[in-house]
Amino acid sequence: MSAAPPPQSIVVLDVEGVLTPEIWIALADEYDIAALRRTTKDEPDYQLLMQGRIDVLSEHGITIDRIQKVIEGLEPLEGAKTFLDALRAETQVLLLSDTFEQFISPLMAQLGHPTILCHRLEIDVDGRIIAFRPRVLDQKRRAVEAFQAMNYRVFAAGDSFNDLAMIDAAESGFLFRAPASIAADRSDLEAFVDYDDLLGALRTARAELGIY
Amino acid sequence: MSAAPPPQSIVVLDVEGVLTPEIWIALADEYDIAALRRTTKDEPDYQLLMQGRIDVLSEHGITIDRIQKVIEGLEPLEGAKTFLDALRAETQVLLLSDTFEQFISPLMAQLGHPTILCHRLEIDVDGRIIAFRPRVLDQKRRAVEAFQAMNYRVFAAGDSFNDLAMIDAAESGFLFRAPASIAADRSDLEAFVDYDDLLGALRTARAELGIY
Repeated sequence: MSAAPPPQSIVVLDVEGVLTPEIWIALADEYDIAALRRTTKDEPDYQLLMQGRIDVLSEHGITIDRIQKVIEGLEPLEGAKTFLDALRAETQVLLLSDTFEQFISPLMAQLGHPTILCHRLEIDVDGRIIAFRPRVLDQKRRAVEAFQAMNYRVFAAGDSFNDLAMIDAAESGFLFRAPASIAADRSDLEAFVDYDDLLGALRTARAELGIY
Repeated sequence: MSAAPPPQSIVVLDVEGVLTPEIWIALADEYDIAALRRTTKDEPDYQLLMQGRIDVLSEHGITIDRIQKVIEGLEPLEGAKTFLDALRAETQVLLLSDTFEQFISPLMAQLGHPTILCHRLEIDVDGRIIAFRPRVLDQKRRAVEAFQAMNYRVFAAGDSFNDLAMIDAAESGFLFRAPASIAADRSDLEAFVDYDDLLGALRTARAELGIY
């Protein structure tokens, strides 16, 4: 008998680019607005990125109901649900995303409603997005640390600048479909493109800590 | 524009007695062992309750594979999945249970793999349960406080002694199918029997804090 309880694991995953398309790219395509094409992969300062997006939407008079209609036409990435289902059958999973509750809900429904922590946009009665204020700063890292404080071993995967703090805070973390620049910058991290490889790496990482 | 971000909610639910049958009662029935019939509704000291259960299983030579076979024959309570699906479509949900990963997995599969925080039993190579050590003490209350620290408004429902700290820590909390003694003791808490009533109360509680 050991003094410590058996280790338990939770896997935290980024969403856009990892399980679903990048929503802002889909909006850029739909409305043919190049300025909406910038993501966290291009601009590490999320507050700056979001203020720019809100300004562009405002200039073009694009309201939340029009945005939601576009998002309702999106589907998770090919193979994402199979991967997520397999992972959820063997450990606990939590999605950590800097998206918004008003955006992501139709895609979460298609993925079987995994629990997701994200933000919420301030929207006026006419459906105009008027502000982005993060629920908390550095929410992905804070979530990892909160679960570690509850004695979970945390494993992470993401594709962008805003995932690095979460990956670094976790027991093990991986890049998944990250742009070449981030993968080069962080060559210390294993980087995967196929879901099966990521699933295998997450299994190995858990097994190395004695979690079965 | 307000200075604070729009409020966001997460609902935390107990599992056994709320969404699924009491597993230990099912084991007591299967093996006709009256001593296994005690639950957290009878014995508030969980460590004491669990040590008693482990001793009884050991005396009867009941191993984890035999227990898992019984659990695989169980189903969620009638209406539980419909309730949970409705709740997951409108807010984030996290299950907080003092059960064990080795027990609850088949029932979670039937409920569509909601995220659940629970414990893990220490089991030897022959499948004998040898110890229970909690992942953390007072895990339900700690989870509520962790989510509040991440700027979530937390709403809770449970049926037992071990749910009261979680319910009291939450913004609002309810009893669901609680024994008469607990409901009488805590007449300050609204108590429900029907899922629709609980769903309605959770909606009202969120709306009262401006969460839609």
